[in-house]
Amino acid sequence: MSKKVAVILSGCGVYDGAEIHESVITLLRLDQCGAQVQCFAPDIAQLHVINHLTGEKMPESRNVLVESARIARGQVKDLREANAEDFDALIVPGGFGAAKNLSNFAIEGAGCVIQAEVLALAEAFAEAGKPVGLICISPALAAKIYGPGVTCTVGNDADTAAAMTRMGATHVDCAVSDIIEDKARKLVSTPAYMLAQSISEAASGINKLVDRVLELTHENDA
Amino acid sequence: MSKKVAVILSGCGVYDGAEIHESVITLLRLDQCGAQVQCFAPDIAQLHVINHLTGEKMPESRNVLVESARIARGQVKDLREANAEDFDALIVPGGFGAAKNLSNFAIEGAGCVIQAEVLALAEAFAEAGKPVGLICISPALAAKIYGPGVTCTVGNDADTAAAMTRMGATHVDCAVSDIIEDKARKLVSTPAYMLAQSISEAASGINKLVDRVLELTHENDA
Repeated sequence: MSKKVAVILSGCGVYDGAEIHESVITLLRLDQCGAQVQCFAPDIAQLHVINHLTGEKMPESRNVLVESARIARGQVKDLREANAEDFDALIVPGGFGAAKNLSNFAIEGAGCVIQAEVLALAEAFAEAGKPVGLICISPALAAKIYGPGVTCTVGNDADTAAAMTRMGATHVDCAVSDIIEDKARKLVSTPAYMLAQSISEAASGINKLVDRVLELTHENDA
Repeated sequence: MSKKVAVILSGCGVYDGAEIHESVITLLRLDQCGAQVQCFAPDIAQLHVINHLTGEKMPESRNVLVESARIARGQVKDLREANAEDFDALIVPGGFGAAKNLSNFAIEGAGCVIQAEVLALAEAFAEAGKPVGLICISPALAAKIYGPGVTCTVGNDADTAAAMTRMGATHVDCAVSDIIEDKARKLVSTPAYMLAQSISEAASGINKLVDRVLELTHENDA
């Protein structure tokens, strides 16, 4: 039977939303593996809008759910409709949206809070023992979801790793083509564009993460 | 020696810009094949902005080059800087952006015109005998680029095919996983989301197109 996977998007674009390559590679691999995918995003304003050509802030406002719909070709639901019981696994691609919209890690670092609906859904997967995949900067949220002692990676960025350690996570350095697994918690993470110098480098780790998350769903089969 | 490929983006989102999945799959395959890629987009306003969640027009304006930078992670240049002499091949992903921003085919059908810089660059590749890949709805531009008799596909959409025929193209039906090649013109096309019911279906044809376009560049090796 095909597995059902929820994917949380955080907008559309690396500097203010979900990283587009990471999101599409995740959706492609899940589909190639025969998983049924439903994208979700919070119905909230983005922290801000960044001109991806210049890196400068634009004087406008965009909605995370509406912009996420670009990546999902319209097939995205409000995160409030998501129920962990309906899914076998959860994956969160990276991009600054994870640290600006799904949480305020980009501003508050170790003192961050996770957006309430994101936290509730991720905690429900964790409590149900269902596998979760966190990509790129998203593992910065792991300590808030799983509590102290959770093992994960954002690659080898010392500052980010230090902030995660202050939050209670155990950070493990990881190559771009590899994954780190917290076996007890069924949490899989990969650095992707925290380290990747090319889209195929990002894909190498993300494909491994998707495959492992799907394998872990089978451990929950009766 | 690695081949250099120019990719023209038309915004960021299927309903008013470049189809994101098609664009990312193209960039991924090119990188996996060792090609050097440079994305370009015209520095013009989008025809309009579509809310991808509701399908409705939004009362705002966005720039094609600036939004394309989201897909390219900032690495996109103004189309005016593109020179066919610097590249071995050209690929244009689909999405309504090809028919709304790169041309006005979505509004004018067979009476459409192609944006001047897009047409000039595509014609330069055609005249130099360099391979071109057109994805999804982009082959609607082929008759304007190559003139009457050019053979290409958008899948099996009768209305679109009829408009292309009126423009002088020879439309050939094609399965989503396949490509149509005009051997004399070194033009390769594939239906992608004109037919695809899933992202992996879209990838099957796009991967074949990218591989064939790169093969054709070797025919031009001295």
